[in-house]
Amino acid sequence: MISITDIESAAARLDGVAIHTPLLESAALNELAGGRVLLKPECLQRTGSFKIRGAYNMMSQIEDRAAGVVAFSSGNHAQGVAAAGRLLGIETTIVMPSDAPRAKLDNTRTLGGNVVTYDRYSEDREAIAHAIAEDRGCTVVPSFDHEHIIAGQGTVGLELADDLKAMAISPNQLFVCCGGGGLTSGSGLALKDRFPDAAVFTVEPEFFDDTARSLRSGSRQTVDESARSFCDAILTPSPGEITFALLQAMNAQGLVVNEKEVREAMRFAFRELKLVVEPGGAVALAAVMFRKAPTVDAVTAVVISGGNVDVDLFSDVQTSA
Amino acid sequence: MISITDIESAAARLDGVAIHTPLLESAALNELAGGRVLLKPECLQRTGSFKIRGAYNMMSQIEDRAAGVVAFSSGNHAQGVAAAGRLLGIETTIVMPSDAPRAKLDNTRTLGGNVVTYDRYSEDREAIAHAIAEDRGCTVVPSFDHEHIIAGQGTVGLELADDLKAMAISPNQLFVCCGGGGLTSGSGLALKDRFPDAAVFTVEPEFFDDTARSLRSGSRQTVDESARSFCDAILTPSPGEITFALLQAMNAQGLVVNEKEVREAMRFAFRELKLVVEPGGAVALAAVMFRKAPTVDAVTAVVISGGNVDVDLFSDVQTSA
Repeated sequence: MISITDIESAAARLDGVAIHTPLLESAALNELAGGRVLLKPECLQRTGSFKIRGAYNMMSQIEDRAAGVVAFSSGNHAQGVAAAGRLLGIETTIVMPSDAPRAKLDNTRTLGGNVVTYDRYSEDREAIAHAIAEDRGCTVVPSFDHEHIIAGQGTVGLELADDLKAMAISPNQLFVCCGGGGLTSGSGLALKDRFPDAAVFTVEPEFFDDTARSLRSGSRQTVDESARSFCDAILTPSPGEITFALLQAMNAQGLVVNEKEVREAMRFAFRELKLVVEPGGAVALAAVMFRKAPTVDAVTAVVISGGNVDVDLFSDVQTSA
Repeated sequence: MISITDIESAAARLDGVAIHTPLLESAALNELAGGRVLLKPECLQRTGSFKIRGAYNMMSQIEDRAAGVVAFSSGNHAQGVAAAGRLLGIETTIVMPSDAPRAKLDNTRTLGGNVVTYDRYSEDREAIAHAIAEDRGCTVVPSFDHEHIIAGQGTVGLELADDLKAMAISPNQLFVCCGGGGLTSGSGLALKDRFPDAAVFTVEPEFFDDTARSLRSGSRQTVDESARSFCDAILTPSPGEITFALLQAMNAQGLVVNEKEVREAMRFAFRELKLVVEPGGAVALAAVMFRKAPTVDAVTAVVISGGNVDVDLFSDVQTSA
């Protein structure tokens, strides 16, 4: 089972590769929360999301690099894998939904990734990726349910925890944007190593609350096939096996926000934080703004997970208050 | 005369008040520059610009705090002074142009500043501020030409230099957005203390190239009264006496960018850096993107000075490529 040592080893591998993102604080957000909020802006990370952490951590440990790797992703993991591949000299093929944000498709190609598109609602991306892997004898780089991926994403929580320690601040809780749970489980694990009493909350968009329902029911739940959301980065059908076990073990709880709240969070990020945040990257911020769990007189750490949003959607969100 | 010790003392005063902003690097920007570029994003600073550094550094040294302070500013210094006043328990009055961005006027008031507006093109803001100061017996907090202000703004360069040292990177040059020269002279001084061979470049918008012309001619020049620019944060009529002397002493050189280049830089910041950058905060980034001084095979440090831009202008810039 993955431990804090794995996350610390990942941090050593990522030194000089991933940006140690800062902790930001906003008086306006503290006021909204009625407590103290520390933000970890992974939109500032290389490739615009935290995903390069896990991708690089796993790919740097692959022994047979010549065969390349294959991955499936709505776009952030895609860019992380492509960027890691370029750094490590590994050829990358990424299966992406045809309706992924144009910027994500373009950037993945610019980073050197070979993009294969599929229909998000009728085709099985895992099957496509595994067929490619079998055909070429190459490694699949999963987007969340793998210990090396989780350890890499966990460096977000490790940096956050160690920076809080250095500032002599004890967080009461952590809110993290949650798709398959790699970022939340890894970061939660690291945070709870440094601050055992801190609570961990996953945050998901409405209709894609599989992790929240899974944590409540005690078994892995799936989303309805008809579910739709503009939070493209975190639309996974169910939590991973490993990630769910980790989240359960740390007594994580699930929070859910709606589209209106996410849009408000994206506007707040523009206005008060000067950050470009994508819908899926804004759900944890929305959860704190709309107090989905008590934040009054508490210290809440919040991960903003990505900023890869097309300009048209961004402008629509900003100007349609 | 101001020295590195003053800047180091300012850094100690600002500990826990100003955010130590990170250094960001973008593969896309390195490619455009043909070299290595390290960005210091002061748009992430408290109040959305570097200005709180100088304001707090000066105001924390005022002995008679009861009488309050008065300042004049197009908006970023205004917010810095108001925020510092709130932290220090000093009442603040700020003289602002009536056509300042709405967000800057609103935020200054939200931070507790008493805003007095004037007409940018027909009234003398310095005269208004000094009349208030005389009337109330309070201190004027100038926006650039004061040693305590310069020392505070210089902490931007100090953080940047010390972070580069820690990364074992030697910068060849520094590009800084320049209005009256407080940020450039202070930051240049700090950088050249750590890296004596680094060159310092001020960057101004076209028609407001008073510092560039002053540095070229050897004496302080002024801008034409008919000059207009959308870079509201850095529209000063001439460099300061102290700031100009400092810039001359360090052999600074002046670069100039046009509005089209600034708009392109704001789009680049959105797309590649996930940062909201205001026009005046983007001029140094524009200078590196459009190679206003040679950047090939060089290490260039660039300060992004602020992100306080109204949503309508921002959306117009982003969607009118």
